[in-house]
Amino acid sequence: MVDDPTSACPTTFGQEPPPAMERRAVLRVQQGKAAPAEDALADEVPVALVYNGISHAVMMATPADLEDFALGFSLTEALIDHPGECYGIEVEAGPAGVAVQLEIASRAFVALKERRRSLAGRTGCGLCGVDSLDQVYRTLPPRTGKAILTGAAVRAALAALPERQALNQLTGATHAAAWCDLAGRIAAVREDVGRHNALDKVAGALARDPGLRMDDGFVLVTSRVSVEMVQKAAMAGAAGIVGVSAPTAAAVRMAAGAGLVLLAFARGDRFTCYAGQEQVTP
Amino acid sequence: MVDDPTSACPTTFGQEPPPAMERRAVLRVQQGKAAPAEDALADEVPVALVYNGISHAVMMATPADLEDFALGFSLTEALIDHPGECYGIEVEAGPAGVAVQLEIASRAFVALKERRRSLAGRTGCGLCGVDSLDQVYRTLPPRTGKAILTGAAVRAALAALPERQALNQLTGATHAAAWCDLAGRIAAVREDVGRHNALDKVAGALARDPGLRMDDGFVLVTSRVSVEMVQKAAMAGAAGIVGVSAPTAAAVRMAAGAGLVLLAFARGDRFTCYAGQEQVTP
Repeated sequence: MVDDPTSACPTTFGQEPPPAMERRAVLRVQQGKAAPAEDALADEVPVALVYNGISHAVMMATPADLEDFALGFSLTEALIDHPGECYGIEVEAGPAGVAVQLEIASRAFVALKERRRSLAGRTGCGLCGVDSLDQVYRTLPPRTGKAILTGAAVRAALAALPERQALNQLTGATHAAAWCDLAGRIAAVREDVGRHNALDKVAGALARDPGLRMDDGFVLVTSRVSVEMVQKAAMAGAAGIVGVSAPTAAAVRMAAGAGLVLLAFARGDRFTCYAGQEQVTP
Repeated sequence: MVDDPTSACPTTFGQEPPPAMERRAVLRVQQGKAAPAEDALADEVPVALVYNGISHAVMMATPADLEDFALGFSLTEALIDHPGECYGIEVEAGPAGVAVQLEIASRAFVALKERRRSLAGRTGCGLCGVDSLDQVYRTLPPRTGKAILTGAAVRAALAALPERQALNQLTGATHAAAWCDLAGRIAAVREDVGRHNALDKVAGALARDPGLRMDDGFVLVTSRVSVEMVQKAAMAGAAGIVGVSAPTAAAVRMAAGAGLVLLAFARGDRFTCYAGQEQVTP
């Protein structure tokens, strides 16, 4: 089940947007025992919002209700003042993602162009610096090693994490990302209200202190696992990413393509293996 | 407790970044009874990453371990190839947020400038189109009405939401945002792997079908409540935002300043009121 990493994005959209959900064969592990199963995963695709022919923003989004998304985004981001300033919305699926074409009033378009001209730099988020569909998926570094993630290591890391989440214990509001060695020992934990930020922080902590990085390891995150999280874990050199919550279908395709283990719904003595099954023991 | 909306961002950073946590007086409601309490909230501030003097990205982040964040982001977003390409990191707090100055190798800086030149448009996320600290906080529309959010309405909406989350029932992976009238009836629900997207979708759904918007109402979201969520709810014209999970301190300051009710940790017969207490009944 090793997909081509460059094809992590669905390539057969045709005219219609891809489905919002995908079924995949997975391996469920509980109390050290593995059983094959089928799982339904929500999907995410790059969605470009194009105003009067000019691409303004690309976001990962679930391909459902995209007309609502485009109009709502335009309103809540104050690109238009009222719904009447949007004359038409067309959803076009292509090989790299979905483009939503909006036709907006001249007043709003002039203001949008002015706003863009006045900005000297770029905005950051999971898709930082990306504004066209072609640029969403990065070429990930190929993994040469074949590290084994054992169920025992995953359970040990899961058990040790909560007491290392100092800010979350006080606030209940922050995500954590931990770097764990293959025995499940946590080398470093960082917290942030943003899950991408927590992962970036732990990647930076390891880079600043190479002594922390005891060994080949995996990233444990308290959040869901989306495409950007897999990208960041791969760039940080992790053998795998383990999420406490759900993965997206696109994240699974990307992890499989890049040779990364992806475990999710990891809680207590349970987890589900979505990618890299041959590198996982229950 | 009505703050100035333009001062939603801390204005007294001085040289040191602001604390990652803030304590606030709140009102806890359970089974229709209210009790004052104190709560610890994680904070988020705009953080600008500035490479060799040029601002590249602004993200909302928890002001802790920002050197780790800056270096990790640079690596996982492939702005530098290895930690040795970063010569220095300096964190400077200012009135509008925190700027992290990075000094990077010429090779990396040339590549970064090239990358920026080749991009025609802008990236989207919670801070879409923003690249300098001054641009993070939008002026929110002033609320004139004084809608009352009753505990009964909140509990009714909470109880009715799960069966409307069709995609999440299958996948366990998607957030939902609902528009609810003041009786707690749900007018529309939209789902997405991204919480900002779900909120934009429901705002768009209402804008596309004005008949759906039965009355003044509030937004119910299955996620945490951060600054961008408050901004989007205010722009959509909601009287308040109710989150199933935690709020950030910055989100509370912004809601208070904009006259928006903010309830969070809303589950079953419980919620906590963080802003707009005078418009809430238990």
